[in-house]
Amino acid sequence: MDSAVKERLKEILGPDGFSDSLIDLISYAKDASEFKRRPDAAIWPKTTEQVSKVLELADREKIPVVPRGAGTSLAGLAVPEKGGLVMDLGRMNRILEINIVDRLAVVQPGVVYANLDKALSVQGFFFPPDPASGSVCTLGGNVATNAGGIKGAKYGTTKDYVLALEVVLPGGRILRTGSRCMKSVSGYDLTKLFVGSEGTLGVITEITLKISPRPPLNSTAMALFEDLEDAGKAVSDIMHSGIIPSALEIVDQQTLKAINQNTDLNLPEVEAILVAETDGYTKEETEFQLDKILRIFEKNKATSVKRAATKSEADALWTARKTAYGVMARINNNLFVEDLAVPMSNVSKMLRIIADLATKYDLKIPTVGHAGDGNLHPVISFDGTDPDEVRRVEEASAELFEKVLELGGTLTGEHGIGLAKARFMGQEHSDLSMAMMRAIKRVFDPNNILNPGKMALEQ
Amino acid sequence: MDSAVKERLKEILGPDGFSDSLIDLISYAKDASEFKRRPDAAIWPKTTEQVSKVLELADREKIPVVPRGAGTSLAGLAVPEKGGLVMDLGRMNRILEINIVDRLAVVQPGVVYANLDKALSVQGFFFPPDPASGSVCTLGGNVATNAGGIKGAKYGTTKDYVLALEVVLPGGRILRTGSRCMKSVSGYDLTKLFVGSEGTLGVITEITLKISPRPPLNSTAMALFEDLEDAGKAVSDIMHSGIIPSALEIVDQQTLKAINQNTDLNLPEVEAILVAETDGYTKEETEFQLDKILRIFEKNKATSVKRAATKSEADALWTARKTAYGVMARINNNLFVEDLAVPMSNVSKMLRIIADLATKYDLKIPTVGHAGDGNLHPVISFDGTDPDEVRRVEEASAELFEKVLELGGTLTGEHGIGLAKARFMGQEHSDLSMAMMRAIKRVFDPNNILNPGKMALEQ
Repeated sequence: MDSAVKERLKEILGPDGFSDSLIDLISYAKDASEFKRRPDAAIWPKTTEQVSKVLELADREKIPVVPRGAGTSLAGLAVPEKGGLVMDLGRMNRILEINIVDRLAVVQPGVVYANLDKALSVQGFFFPPDPASGSVCTLGGNVATNAGGIKGAKYGTTKDYVLALEVVLPGGRILRTGSRCMKSVSGYDLTKLFVGSEGTLGVITEITLKISPRPPLNSTAMALFEDLEDAGKAVSDIMHSGIIPSALEIVDQQTLKAINQNTDLNLPEVEAILVAETDGYTKEETEFQLDKILRIFEKNKATSVKRAATKSEADALWTARKTAYGVMARINNNLFVEDLAVPMSNVSKMLRIIADLATKYDLKIPTVGHAGDGNLHPVISFDGTDPDEVRRVEEASAELFEKVLELGGTLTGEHGIGLAKARFMGQEHSDLSMAMMRAIKRVFDPNNILNPGKMALEQ
Repeated sequence: MDSAVKERLKEILGPDGFSDSLIDLISYAKDASEFKRRPDAAIWPKTTEQVSKVLELADREKIPVVPRGAGTSLAGLAVPEKGGLVMDLGRMNRILEINIVDRLAVVQPGVVYANLDKALSVQGFFFPPDPASGSVCTLGGNVATNAGGIKGAKYGTTKDYVLALEVVLPGGRILRTGSRCMKSVSGYDLTKLFVGSEGTLGVITEITLKISPRPPLNSTAMALFEDLEDAGKAVSDIMHSGIIPSALEIVDQQTLKAINQNTDLNLPEVEAILVAETDGYTKEETEFQLDKILRIFEKNKATSVKRAATKSEADALWTARKTAYGVMARINNNLFVEDLAVPMSNVSKMLRIIADLATKYDLKIPTVGHAGDGNLHPVISFDGTDPDEVRRVEEASAELFEKVLELGGTLTGEHGIGLAKARFMGQEHSDLSMAMMRAIKRVFDPNNILNPGKMALEQ
């Protein structure tokens, strides 16, 4: 990046809005995945106008721009694969409006999920998609990745809540999509095209989100299954029962072993644990739903079924699920938190395949997931300094996604394609589908400056 | 259309799949709107392969193709504005799969909404977006228009339920979008781009829909308001209460007058009636929610509040709302069923503006609507043989949509743009937004053969 460009960037962003110091370039070389590549500079815009001026300059000079929030991506979405600028939107962090009557919130992209949640909570509302990284991740990132969470089965994902966007396009043009109305069918749905586009089509500078009343009550239960297939059968039966639990999480045997090795929780090392939560306005409602689920657990040979009588008992039932990631990070020095989804009927089959792959490739692959919507997270922990183990991880990943697609699944339920899954895109999507995605990319970003190298959009 | 093309179409579709008889051309000149234009021929494909061959031919010969279902569009979406072929998908009417465990249904585009609803109902499930035309409209049309209905506030619209599509593109290429998984963020969301695209991007030949358990119980109440603003205030208060009713409908004074003039229901001619329905698994739950709503009605000076104790009492409370369209059709010989949405806080303001416009232009504009999501249907009944009245209708419409946009509203909540709203598109969307929509259109349909002349995509 030549010095004239750097000077212009400093002019646009002010002295504290630009850096090319080594420490910043090293920081912005990574996100929460295993990928890394240093950018040429990092910038911190504070206004849409600054973003616009940067994208005008970058488009003219053909400089890659990688918009990012908190950098919690597990798939390399925020890594500047082709160098250029990392644009950290963390300083555009104001909640601009919370309007209960209009059932919406307007936020800047750098607002942390938990901060919006706190602001909505006092009014009895929430923004349902709650990623595990909610305490640090930003809403711009949530929109760019179409973030999910444990309430997906009942409440959907981010895309179901984005009403309108302000987006800056390459060249600096400012596009407003959608409306403040709950319903609109006025023209093509440009809003949804940006949701999940991983920063490859435009830089999101303002977000209008639909919000929902927070159900005041919930009930929680946990069940142990000696046999994985029984747990899968229970999930299927719950679907037939007409209940959509507000959460239905699965924890596998490898995860339980990892937890026991790294904590003193002494959990029973069964093949699967299911944790279910139901919600509603009245205790009768949440218990009515949970009763049905408990009967299904028992019918499917759960060896132990516990129902929480209090909030602290409920928290205890969630311990295995909520401890999982922290524990897994301690198993070895490298970690791939994988992400896939399969049709719900294939959840137990998929878990069995993952266990078999772990044996075949001599790896540890503990898995947790959102059984209620078929979204699983196998966690491959490995020693990145051992070339043989790295090779086995790569081969196991490739075979894993082959199997996922054979079962009618998808490469990613909520983490995105980024760098991690780019090589598999052609296996899920036809040549025609890829050609259409690439043509859409060219419509918005003809010079390919936005987050280049991601989602296999260039092959 | 030359005879060689007609012969080729007969070859592709078989003798009973093609017609250019006058009676068919007259039938297919119209949908449920006031627009009309005769096509050159009508075709009835039975397979995706036939659709593909037709689009290969049509693209080569630059022949317009207008896909249509039952033709219930109120905005001219199915009128062949540039002639060419009307492609009636009504013979592709099989429900291919209902899979409760995977929580989905796979249907052909010609399946009537009510038939899917019946098939799901026996398993305790439903496909929530329930357009008023549900007994006749087809799911291909519902997807192409992103159809809504009275349950929108709680359950969303069609787009929230489309998981995957098979679409034939101009040239005959067959594209598969999305997946059978509840969650996927694998690449751009091409599925959602087709939802609401009004047949301008491709012909939908297979639809995979997410389905939901049907809440077994509901409670219903109705309230009369002497003052429109009080009704508006009640709607706002309901939002603050944390309750999302499964339906919250508004009927205005003009509608009540029209009903009284055409039936012997003798309804009180107050400024507004609100009908609310709540749902859930238990009676406690539905009544808990309804109690809150009733207290809000009373607090906002409802002059009469009725709560249904039985199913037939509930049906009686729905009478005013459900009788409305039939009655309005009898007022005069022409009818525009308008469609707009505003942010919920502006519902009563919008209704007041509509009443004022009716006075100003000496028209009858009874209005009903989905107060719970801000989607209103002013119905302009007029005498199409009276040039002065037609001019007044046009002027009132133009002023109506100017006001809608001033209030932060949108041109259409659920009926679509089609021909009816094409001239207003530039008022809601910026030049940049229109340019992006037109560029997307060119990606999918470079020769502009699919439903040309709609949505202002050509200006």
